[in-house]
Amino acid sequence: MHAGVEGGDEEIVAAVVSGALPSHHLESRLGDCRRAARLRREALRRVSGRGVEGLPFDGMDYQAILGQCCEMPVGYVQVPVGVAGPLLLDGRQYHVPMATTEGCLVASVNRGCRAIAASGGAVSVLLRDAMSRAPVVKLPSAKRAAELKSFVEAAANFETLASVFKRSSRFGRLQGIHCALAGRNLYIRFTCSTGDAMGMNMVSKGVENVLGYLQNDFPDMDLISLSGNYCSDKKPTAVNWIEGRGKSVVCEATIKGGVVQSVLKTTVQKLVELNIIKNLTGSAVAGALGGFNAHASNIVTALFIATGQDPAQNVESSQCITMLEAVNDGDDLHISVTMPSIEVGTIGGGTCLASQASCLNLLGVRGPNGDSPGANAKLLATIVAGSVLAGELSLLGALAAGQLVNSHLKYNRSNKDVASAAS
Amino acid sequence: MHAGVEGGDEEIVAAVVSGALPSHHLESRLGDCRRAARLRREALRRVSGRGVEGLPFDGMDYQAILGQCCEMPVGYVQVPVGVAGPLLLDGRQYHVPMATTEGCLVASVNRGCRAIAASGGAVSVLLRDAMSRAPVVKLPSAKRAAELKSFVEAAANFETLASVFKRSSRFGRLQGIHCALAGRNLYIRFTCSTGDAMGMNMVSKGVENVLGYLQNDFPDMDLISLSGNYCSDKKPTAVNWIEGRGKSVVCEATIKGGVVQSVLKTTVQKLVELNIIKNLTGSAVAGALGGFNAHASNIVTALFIATGQDPAQNVESSQCITMLEAVNDGDDLHISVTMPSIEVGTIGGGTCLASQASCLNLLGVRGPNGDSPGANAKLLATIVAGSVLAGELSLLGALAAGQLVNSHLKYNRSNKDVASAAS
Amino acid sequence: MHAGVEGGDEEIVAAVVSGALPSHHLESRLGDCRRAARLRREALRRVSGRGVEGLPFDGMDYQAILGQCCEMPVGYVQVPVGVAGPLLLDGRQYHVPMATTEGCLVASVNRGCRAIAASGGAVSVLLRDAMSRAPVVKLPSAKRAAELKSFVEAAANFETLASVFKRSSRFGRLQGIHCALAGRNLYIRFTCSTGDAMGMNMVSKGVENVLGYLQNDFPDMDLISLSGNYCSDKKPTAVNWIEGRGKSVVCEATIKGGVVQSVLKTTVQKLVELNIIKNLTGSAVAGALGGFNAHASNIVTALFIATGQDPAQNVESSQCITMLEAVNDGDDLHISVTMPSIEVGTIGGGTCLASQASCLNLLGVRGPNGDSPGANAKLLATIVAGSVLAGELSLLGALAAGQLVNSHLKYNRSNKDVASAAS
Amino acid sequence: MHAGVEGGDEEIVAAVVSGALPSHHLESRLGDCRRAARLRREALRRVSGRGVEGLPFDGMDYQAILGQCCEMPVGYVQVPVGVAGPLLLDGRQYHVPMATTEGCLVASVNRGCRAIAASGGAVSVLLRDAMSRAPVVKLPSAKRAAELKSFVEAAANFETLASVFKRSSRFGRLQGIHCALAGRNLYIRFTCSTGDAMGMNMVSKGVENVLGYLQNDFPDMDLISLSGNYCSDKKPTAVNWIEGRGKSVVCEATIKGGVVQSVLKTTVQKLVELNIIKNLTGSAVAGALGGFNAHASNIVTALFIATGQDPAQNVESSQCITMLEAVNDGDDLHISVTMPSIEVGTIGGGTCLASQASCLNLLGVRGPNGDSPGANAKLLATIVAGSVLAGELSLLGALAAGQLVNSHLKYNRSNKDVASAAS
Repeated sequence: MHAGVEGGDEEIVAAVVSGALPSHHLESRLGDCRRAARLRREALRRVSGRGVEGLPFDGMDYQAILGQCCEMPVGYVQVPVGVAGPLLLDGRQYHVPMATTEGCLVASVNRGCRAIAASGGAVSVLLRDAMSRAPVVKLPSAKRAAELKSFVEAAANFETLASVFKRSSRFGRLQGIHCALAGRNLYIRFTCSTGDAMGMNMVSKGVENVLGYLQNDFPDMDLISLSGNYCSDKKPTAVNWIEGRGKSVVCEATIKGGVVQSVLKTTVQKLVELNIIKNLTGSAVAGALGGFNAHASNIVTALFIATGQDPAQNVESSQCITMLEAVNDGDDLHISVTMPSIEVGTIGGGTCLASQASCLNLLGVRGPNGDSPGANAKLLATIVAGSVLAGELSLLGALAAGQLVNSHLKYNRSNKDVASAAS
Repeated sequence: MHAGVEGGDEEIVAAVVSGALPSHHLESRLGDCRRAARLRREALRRVSGRGVEGLPFDGMDYQAILGQCCEMPVGYVQVPVGVAGPLLLDGRQYHVPMATTEGCLVASVNRGCRAIAASGGAVSVLLRDAMSRAPVVKLPSAKRAAELKSFVEAAANFETLASVFKRSSRFGRLQGIHCALAGRNLYIRFTCSTGDAMGMNMVSKGVENVLGYLQNDFPDMDLISLSGNYCSDKKPTAVNWIEGRGKSVVCEATIKGGVVQSVLKTTVQKLVELNIIKNLTGSAVAGALGGFNAHASNIVTALFIATGQDPAQNVESSQCITMLEAVNDGDDLHISVTMPSIEVGTIGGGTCLASQASCLNLLGVRGPNGDSPGANAKLLATIVAGSVLAGELSLLGALAAGQLVNSHLKYNRSNKDVASAAS
Repeated sequence: MHAGVEGGDEEIVAAVVSGALPSHHLESRLGDCRRAARLRREALRRVSGRGVEGLPFDGMDYQAILGQCCEMPVGYVQVPVGVAGPLLLDGRQYHVPMATTEGCLVASVNRGCRAIAASGGAVSVLLRDAMSRAPVVKLPSAKRAAELKSFVEAAANFETLASVFKRSSRFGRLQGIHCALAGRNLYIRFTCSTGDAMGMNMVSKGVENVLGYLQNDFPDMDLISLSGNYCSDKKPTAVNWIEGRGKSVVCEATIKGGVVQSVLKTTVQKLVELNIIKNLTGSAVAGALGGFNAHASNIVTALFIATGQDPAQNVESSQCITMLEAVNDGDDLHISVTMPSIEVGTIGGGTCLASQASCLNLLGVRGPNGDSPGANAKLLATIVAGSVLAGELSLLGALAAGQLVNSHLKYNRSNKDVASAAS
Repeated sequence: MHAGVEGGDEEIVAAVVSGALPSHHLESRLGDCRRAARLRREALRRVSGRGVEGLPFDGMDYQAILGQCCEMPVGYVQVPVGVAGPLLLDGRQYHVPMATTEGCLVASVNRGCRAIAASGGAVSVLLRDAMSRAPVVKLPSAKRAAELKSFVEAAANFETLASVFKRSSRFGRLQGIHCALAGRNLYIRFTCSTGDAMGMNMVSKGVENVLGYLQNDFPDMDLISLSGNYCSDKKPTAVNWIEGRGKSVVCEATIKGGVVQSVLKTTVQKLVELNIIKNLTGSAVAGALGGFNAHASNIVTALFIATGQDPAQNVESSQCITMLEAVNDGDDLHISVTMPSIEVGTIGGGTCLASQASCLNLLGVRGPNGDSPGANAKLLATIVAGSVLAGELSLLGALAAGQLVNSHLKYNRSNKDVASAAS
């Protein structure tokens, strides 16, 4: 698994070590990405005195990640992929790949999937599909900023702005513009549909188009930043929780009372009470923002890593409110998860890498959807929500049943799961 | 890279496919983790009709992840690791491994490291080290819940509770107990130091000890959940932002004006203004909770995946307020990041896997610190903060300089970086 | 100031004391509001053994408050009214009545007004005018709730819903409908313009109309509550901060450097730094929601009480972000306040009472605006923002100058103002 | 009710009108507060062209408010006081004075009191009593700020700092110091008990003492502001919600099923469901911060105005989570309100005014408690919570019963209450 330095490489490594050749110039200098990574790795070993023994090197396409996924590569980490399910969602079965190092997580989601399937499956609805980007511009006065706000929010100007926005992309279609003011600074939140891409790039380019256009009518507009944090990307913010970002999805299932007992080893009433006291009240007391769930972040993150999404976006993608209530005269359990900001795509970014693409393929959502652009990304978002539903159901069941000690004895020799499962 | 089905396996695969043998029983049934994973993979191929072609299988120790990291494994995803730096922090140099599929990220942190090094390095301070777990219990009345609150918060009882807490661990030392009430439900937030482990398991076991002890004096105490979401794990909550969770770290550097110009291609004044309008005001307008930064989550996540941390915890671990101001008569730039909830460990969980352990080794923080238990985990937390500092500096520089279009042309053929860089 | 019990009253008082005649039936029983209040007061004296000696009784029209402002009255409290100003706003002068018992507050706003006037006045812009009410309904499933969401948010249905909404009022005009889901519960936030009334009643009645109408198409819709807290009234919520409630106003002024020195006794640079560290950063660290200001609530509350608004609404009406920056090469100070949720009216509620109406009259906004319905309420909102601007400027000046000790010696023998001024 | 200008006054009024004599100098110039207010009023009439006809003048002690409650007074507004109750709380009966102009409010609280009394009364517990003030200081570096943090938080230094803190007051006793950092800015949150005063002044003076003391050991400490917004006063912040400010109180009652039906006209089950969907879930969806209630702000504000508290503080004083659950096999209702930040006092500020003092007297909490300093303020806090409990119970009952239309027909000719009641 190691990358040896072959004949003729020595000089180059020495140049990197001495600083004569910056490490990040290796790819362009050598014209061979794999060799560049290999020599960088050797240089790192010498400079650091430690190197990365044990970090796999072979088996990845270094050309593919150049400029796309990762700069200055020296190898890769392996994240184990377990498969939970099948998840019975909207009448179809999905085998859910989860890349994780957290013990008990796949097992837990798997159990949730079993309870769902035994109850006839889960149903999802996609409520909204719109990526956002909010540049901030400064005007000479708040009055003037208000004029620009009026201009971009005016219904009469929407068609024009939408056509300017669309110049750079086949798929990015402007959906709306919503502004916030702070004195003379104007935050303009553009939202657009983005086909099968997660879409940050698409919306950013569209925004650049519009800003250029606006500059004509508002020459006194000063662009402070292409992102003014009102987007909001990778920060827990209310604007995403209220307005949504990416795909907004709700997913629900009715779990039969018998299944609650046989699979989850607890009762409907205990689960309902637990959800009120932990996920609603406990999070309220903790001052949560969109965090009214047990462990949505676990499932979101594992699916994101497996399928080449941006796991840094789980900050908002895992915003979720989990609701449980007794139905059918208290016999059965209705459970739902509402997730306003699932940011996923099936093209671009890490989805191109072979291992990640294979996980997308397992779910039947690899690449662009030719028939219905955007359908793959939307389907992936519902699978995320469905998997979160399974995960919530199972962990709440374990907590309500007081099973944690047992589950830990069974699954996790280092006991990490007791802690994790109680998230 | 595929795992073929060898002679004698056919029967087992067929049993899994038919449902006669549950997939998650394979490991215990076969007594051979690798074989179990291989046969599961084949069964998955047949059941799903898709399989995971392209997902690497060989080269991972399936025995090592059993019950520890991942259930029902069928292979692993490869996440490319780039190395940024060296980061000059507290007088030492670190080569920072980042596992990411986001273009431009490693390059950006690398540039930040250069600016920091050229200015004499960054300095960090660890303010606090305490993992938390907050079970919720219900008492017959709020009055009674208040009595339990008084009991566990009383200084006079601390020594007793601390010794009960400590029974299950050499390293978990109780630091404090802070309660919140919602009517007759009591959320008891225990905090403890956890050596070189991230510590969720340690604190959970200590909590179980104490709850058992309390049951004697408060027989009317009903345990609702080992976690009442006031902990708070993997949810964006105010309690973590205010009280901290894991390691609380502040990291700072003074960047020389000349370096701002030569490396970041902008000015001190522009950077300061940008930070106020984007990271402070923009996030305030967006209703952020601890999200007063440009893209801390990017760096935290990449380091977490590389070093075997729990990336689902980046929700709170990336809480960060970035401050910039002009110093030395406006010539130089003072920059800091304050991060109250960095949850990291160097033992347990994903840190045990070979590739992740090699990244910890590169940083000199692999495994437990024999001389000073906890020192490795603390050091790792400061490296996370230092890397965030570098990342913030560089992205703010790019935004202030309006470089995004250029940087995207250079680094990212699919242009994803324009979007990402503007986080 | 006392209300004696006259001949013939004795029997009635005794009946109230004995419980034979419920106190709240006095008005309808006696047909004389003043007498009812007088006898209630005497009964209170006997029952409580304390009474309300010192609480003024005469001089208020008890008939006017019946069923409108206050039930079971026994007198009134006196809240002193000081007048600050003139506030030079949008080219006109306003003498601002403030009802308060907080020492230093009127003086502080007065000083701010002086600084503003000496710099040419302040300018305001009303960005939005829309009161909101959000009932919550439950549907049989989340899928069905999503269908109702689609229906009420569909552009094609807006005209119909707007005309149904409008049946009950001349002035309440539906502006928009924005829904949030939590599983199968749907929160439907209606916003409408409300003329010169604060408008909660108007929007509530319109909402009732629409709900009745929707019941036809959605017979499975179960009304849980006319208010589902997504409105949000009298609670600090992100939805108001992001979307606004009532009038959204921004107000700004450029304070000349000389005025900063002569009136505020400090410098532009100190003020700018103070605002960043206190109002932006300090509030961020405290986990504020819309509380990025020094003491907006003080001014909002005093104006609300003086002019008969609902002071319980200051929770959201005082949401405010205060921005300060140096302009004109650092010589002058640009200051602004952005307030998204100012809930005011000039008709209805407490605006009808004589003393409150006189304060509205002083501002030139008493009652409905005949020429341009809604213009009085809008003007009042801008005066609130302008007064907040003055208050922010002055308190920040005092803090920057370290004047608090002095101001307290001068104004407040009980020193309360030191505390208050430092809000 | 008017204040005529008597002989000899003309010259002074003319001087004020012309600007020769600043209005705020009248008191010191004339040495007669009543006359000063009278002449100011006349000058206002001339300058504004409107005056304050209808604003009462006589009957208030203008000497008493000088420098204490209000500057530049010209009269007072009358706020009607209704009396709800008796509230049966902790075994005693309280007649609750509410100063309000919101129709239905007193009636609603009154009904809640009836339901509570019929069920045996409410019980309250005071969990904490500590006013806070958090100055912000800047140090040369974050490292140095961390040193100051360590110093002030060190247990070994507490006694010394507490004795320095206490120099300025008999009652202000330091309870704790908790710091937050943002780079090199340090926010030091001091908490102290304050006897029967609300205590902002007391804690501020103690803080000044400590800052003076610290300056010796930390000469590089630069005081930016006596308040750094981490206190937090009059802003909705998480730090108050998590840590509390002023008095933290929980209040509970068990309402008999029969009473729910006869008094509230609804069922236990409906109330419980309503609370989950509106107060917990609806507020979660709205992004509430401590606003998990129906209309706590209404009751807090009315009691605050009646008893001379600072109504601008209702922003945080009305933070409240209301919990309802079925008990006794579903027959009865357990209801509680948990309020962490009730800021009240019975001395100082508006409590000195005659009308407000009479309301305090009605509750038996006027002035300082000689036997047990602080007992009056604490009792007042529990009465606030108890009244909120009654108000929550009644409004939730009205919403659950769908009574709003009826109640509005009965109580409120202008229908304002429909809107208000649905808060």
